[in-house]
Amino acid sequence: MEDAQGPSKSALKKAEKQAKMAAAKAEKAAARATTVPIVGGGGAKKGDESKEIIGMTVSKEVNFSQWYHDLVIKAELVEYYSEISGFFILRPAAMHIWNVIRAWFQERIQDMGVEETNFPMFLSSKSLEKEKEHVEGFAPELAWVTKAGDKDLEVPVAVRPTSEAVMYPYYSKWIRSHRDLPFRLNQWNSVVRWEAKQTTPFLRTREFLWQEGHTAHLSEALAEKEVLEILELYAGVYEQLLAVPVVRGKKTENEKFAGGYWTSTCEAYIPTNGRGIQGATSHKMFDITVEDPEKKGEKIFVWQNSWGLSTRVIGVMVMLHGDDKGLVLPPRVTKIQAILIPVGLTAKMNPEDRANHMKQVDELRASLRKAKVRVEIDDRDGYFETSTANRIVNTSTPGFKFADWEMKGIPLRLEFGPKDAAASVVTYARRDTGSKGTIPIAELATQVPALLETIQQDMYNKADASFKSHRLILRDWAQVVPALDSRNVVLIPFCEEPACEERIKELTKSDENQELGPDGLRQPSMGMKSLCIPFEQPDGLVQGETKCLNPECERLAKSWVMFGRSY
Amino acid sequence: MEDAQGPSKSALKKAEKQAKMAAAKAEKAAARATTVPIVGGGGAKKGDESKEIIGMTVSKEVNFSQWYHDLVIKAELVEYYSEISGFFILRPAAMHIWNVIRAWFQERIQDMGVEETNFPMFLSSKSLEKEKEHVEGFAPELAWVTKAGDKDLEVPVAVRPTSEAVMYPYYSKWIRSHRDLPFRLNQWNSVVRWEAKQTTPFLRTREFLWQEGHTAHLSEALAEKEVLEILELYAGVYEQLLAVPVVRGKKTENEKFAGGYWTSTCEAYIPTNGRGIQGATSHKMFDITVEDPEKKGEKIFVWQNSWGLSTRVIGVMVMLHGDDKGLVLPPRVTKIQAILIPVGLTAKMNPEDRANHMKQVDELRASLRKAKVRVEIDDRDGYFETSTANRIVNTSTPGFKFADWEMKGIPLRLEFGPKDAAASVVTYARRDTGSKGTIPIAELATQVPALLETIQQDMYNKADASFKSHRLILRDWAQVVPALDSRNVVLIPFCEEPACEERIKELTKSDENQELGPDGLRQPSMGMKSLCIPFEQPDGLVQGETKCLNPECERLAKSWVMFGRSY
Repeated sequence: MEDAQGPSKSALKKAEKQAKMAAAKAEKAAARATTVPIVGGGGAKKGDESKEIIGMTVSKEVNFSQWYHDLVIKAELVEYYSEISGFFILRPAAMHIWNVIRAWFQERIQDMGVEETNFPMFLSSKSLEKEKEHVEGFAPELAWVTKAGDKDLEVPVAVRPTSEAVMYPYYSKWIRSHRDLPFRLNQWNSVVRWEAKQTTPFLRTREFLWQEGHTAHLSEALAEKEVLEILELYAGVYEQLLAVPVVRGKKTENEKFAGGYWTSTCEAYIPTNGRGIQGATSHKMFDITVEDPEKKGEKIFVWQNSWGLSTRVIGVMVMLHGDDKGLVLPPRVTKIQAILIPVGLTAKMNPEDRANHMKQVDELRASLRKAKVRVEIDDRDGYFETSTANRIVNTSTPGFKFADWEMKGIPLRLEFGPKDAAASVVTYARRDTGSKGTIPIAELATQVPALLETIQQDMYNKADASFKSHRLILRDWAQVVPALDSRNVVLIPFCEEPACEERIKELTKSDENQELGPDGLRQPSMGMKSLCIPFEQPDGLVQGETKCLNPECERLAKSWVMFGRSY
Repeated sequence: MEDAQGPSKSALKKAEKQAKMAAAKAEKAAARATTVPIVGGGGAKKGDESKEIIGMTVSKEVNFSQWYHDLVIKAELVEYYSEISGFFILRPAAMHIWNVIRAWFQERIQDMGVEETNFPMFLSSKSLEKEKEHVEGFAPELAWVTKAGDKDLEVPVAVRPTSEAVMYPYYSKWIRSHRDLPFRLNQWNSVVRWEAKQTTPFLRTREFLWQEGHTAHLSEALAEKEVLEILELYAGVYEQLLAVPVVRGKKTENEKFAGGYWTSTCEAYIPTNGRGIQGATSHKMFDITVEDPEKKGEKIFVWQNSWGLSTRVIGVMVMLHGDDKGLVLPPRVTKIQAILIPVGLTAKMNPEDRANHMKQVDELRASLRKAKVRVEIDDRDGYFETSTANRIVNTSTPGFKFADWEMKGIPLRLEFGPKDAAASVVTYARRDTGSKGTIPIAELATQVPALLETIQQDMYNKADASFKSHRLILRDWAQVVPALDSRNVVLIPFCEEPACEERIKELTKSDENQELGPDGLRQPSMGMKSLCIPFEQPDGLVQGETKCLNPECERLAKSWVMFGRSY
């Protein structure tokens, strides 16, 4: 599988070309940015240098790329791996999200009858030669092991970029007759694609976690049924877990997986730059033969599917929901759903009152945990050195804590001070909207779970409304480039011809309407490419009558196709 | 961590030296073995060649090594990876066992506060140099990536053999003060150790799955508490899930992990050859400093633990419980707990009666699944080509099916024929004991789960009795070698001196009492090495009085130490 981490690679070059330089600049800029006060911070006592920013210093709207690179580090989703460029450490907050996705998806494919396997991480050059067409695209990215200890290997082996090339020969062995169909295996692992171009945490990394499912079916109809079931599960990961609306569809000939028969896809949308982004694909290919159940002694080809979903989806979620205060995490996937912060505890307070108050805080946590809320108390008290700014920071103030948990995207902040205690309530603040209110302590166990579900829904609805309002159905070519420049994706009648698609990409490049590059400089806008042929087609396209929208094209339109600038 | 896959490597050489040749011979022998009839098989119609063995052809007692190599393939736990030697494909039956272990262990370490991370699979030579002492042992086994695509890497990178060398530098960054302690991370991944010597599925492979936990603590006492908690979880994996009794203890200086402070371990025992086998270890090391909470401005070292558990435990379980019919799986870990086989359906039976009977079989499955029993129906009907013997086999006879599921180790066989239906019962046969009986259909949902638990307990009790009766407390040196030759491990008073331990290994080698090698030839017995200093010490060792049992040693004994021939 090629596309689980990204669409056709050429399209990415332009968009990411200068990002490395930009990221480095951003790091330096952040380190220099010593004049911004702590959000809500106060009371730092170790000298003036302590009033340093540890929050976001870059606006999402002003410099999206730098904002993203800063955010994933500061919110402690990833750490750059200083050992080897292009690799990232996934920290507990990110691993929790991936594990929620994994458990959700695993349960469902298990119910479908997909079994789990684990193939070795290395391929020999032999199997790579056998699957030449398939492997060609990966050749420049293969990591080759040539030595073990200080001895050269007789035959070098490559770290898998994907596993079908080594798996299918075993399928031929294990599938003994049509009675063994469907034959379905999935594995959860990491793969390596040694990208020469700029890497971006989650979106494009030299190693990433994913699942790869490879299945074999007796008929095209059965294979197609599975592809659509899996696509619906991928859409479920986006929509139900990550609160990211997607458009389901199939790829055009130009954008489909090389060696595949057709490719289905979920397409998400990032409003900040109007880009489409592909998160998961499933493919169909064929090769193995089995005995024909209808005609004894004759062989028929089985239909094979491959489908993969990677940690890339986490990056899409971060880009879509995050804001200038940091991450915004959907309640269903976040490790911590609610952070409980004691407030209003002054230095003058007598120790007994303080202890009594903290005891109440503990009780609140206990009752929330009983209601299955993933809640933590922030009772930090003291100072630490920040790794980003090399400064001492007072971590004991509510102001610091509020900003810190906002940065980390925790959906719900619960504050509990002496005034709340007196009124038997807890004060809350939603991360997604900033709105505040109080909840009676007696209703905490029902209202907090309900509120978390509301946040989940509202996050999805907001993103869905945004995507819908930026998915323009166009019948006038003149509106296409302005629509792209206004950060939309477009649905246009299209002939589905590869050459026409290439031409459309050329025609929609624009030197006049420049966009802000990751380095902060204006650069020519990239042309649009097809994102997918949506399964859900708008009305109004008359077969044999409606023309392809490309003004240079004489052909008839076959379908509404979604185009856009994209990752 | 070094030891999760095995004890000190030198000890293994002798035992596994000729196994590769033997495995190859065994494969050929199995392919030639065309004269053994199918167990219970009959009615094969495609010519005489169909009466071929697909079951075990080698006795566990006669040739343990070949029996093991055959079994893991034929029971479909693993497949040899023909691409690259020393690697194995884990098939669904094995992955299910590993996933049960993973879920059980993960839940418990999460409750302890251990968080999940994911570090890249590559290390740079830089970090390897920094942790020289630690890495030295792995140097000959490192797989080096020297090329990406067709370009040489500027700096080659090694596939991780274990990750602490790259993780600890980040710990120094992330642990900002003693308030961040304990700091605990775990990851589930695969590691590569390119062994030059013979590999064995599960026990010694060039890549294996494991978890590696690396934690940091403020004090030795806190670190030690965790080591013992983790050791108890490892013992739980063995005893509660895999029905394998173990002895908990610590390693002697000779056998402890290089660079570790001390090493705790679980030691299991394989009665067939009287060998000890180490399955999991946890270590203590130290290196990082934090601010002393007692004395402002001063630094103290943190105490670090590393602990790992690998797929090796599956191999121990296979060796311990398997018999000449194949695998015997503990109910708690097996993918299929009960196999439901329709029997007594003759060719003369009228189609309506047959359909009616099969409907009842479906209902039985439904009620068992409702009772959370992992049950499948075997309604295979027809022929297939075996991959091992290249012969057509009739898979529709009960005899074939019984043998097939016995081979795969399914704990409980449920037979249901017209006679059973008439009596409203299901006939069962236990895989572990072979004992049979009937269960009233009305009580299936309670009796089957209870019976599965009984099997689990009985398997453990049998293994425990065997281990206990082969763990001899000896006070007479003359009994040591005979005890080993009778397949025992021994507990002897020991001075704990490394030189004495080396000498004991020499003294207990034996040219006279030869044992059967994996090639079927007699070979000199290996000397015994220390397995562990059991936490549970027998009575009767008087400090300052009892002497070390080595007749050449003049020192006093410090403890009872368990010695044995070992994997």
